Amino acid sequence: MADHLTQFEQIGQAFVKHYYTLFDNQQSRTESLINMYYQQGCFQTFEGNQAAGHDAIRQKLAALTFQRIARSITSVDCQPLPDGIMVVVLGQLKTDEDQPQSYVESFVLKASGGNYFITNNVFRLVLHHM
Amino acid sequence: MADHLTQFEQIGQAFVKHYYTLFDNQQSRTESLINMYYQQGCFQTFEGNQAAGHDAIRQKLAALTFQRIARSITSVDCQPLPDGIMVVVLGQLKTDEDQPQSYVESFVLKASGGNYFITNNVFRLVLHHM
Repeated sequence: MADHLTQFEQIGQAFVKHYYTLFDNQQSRTESLINMYYQQGCFQTFEGNQAAGHDAIRQKLAALTFQRIARSITSVDCQPLPDGIMVVVLGQLKTDEDQPQSYVESFVLKASGGNYFITNNVFRLVLHHM
Repeated sequence: MADHLTQFEQIGQAFVKHYYTLFDNQQSRTESLINMYYQQGCFQTFEGNQAAGHDAIRQKLAALTFQRIARSITSVDCQPLPDGIMVVVLGQLKTDEDQPQSYVESFVLKASGGNYFITNNVFRLVLHHM
């Protein structure tokens, strides 16, 4: 049986740790992080703004301007998919001198050649009726 | 091209409306709602509690005790998947006499025979450090 059907929990947790380690360091936020996205097709929606494909997502990552980010993960929910894993993260983050914010980030990971790549990523701050 | 690759936004929005119409009515919350889950395989995680398959999810739905629910949707983010749609909902809800709560609910829908069925569902109230 494929790894992701029995070990989706461990793989999902390890993915989240790795993703945020790269994201939270300005040196790795673009060129290293983009390699976690599936090259043959990937989607990102950040606060309602959609980007499709490596080039568009790399541009979005490169445009993030904050220097420092502090993050606290509240929960990571993982479920198996036929060819990958669904991961949903609830947490809090604080960038530079901004106030702390609740956020939720959902991922679909695809198993490919023994690794897992992001095909889908949706990020939202928990803000209502702005 | 398959409907879900071009119309994922409209299909996802219509799904959310239909799902919550059934969920929010105590008469349809179990027997009608369960038919929206993919019979050949489905997963639900509700506040960290996992259930797999129709029978287990039906039991979880039948065990919900609240009579009234008021809901306000803040955002619905939809993305295409190779054989379906990813949907992420951010909203607020209020059951019976409880305080209003922020919540997030993520779905993976599978296209099958011209319809869309839930294969994956993760629900979390936005509560930190309980």
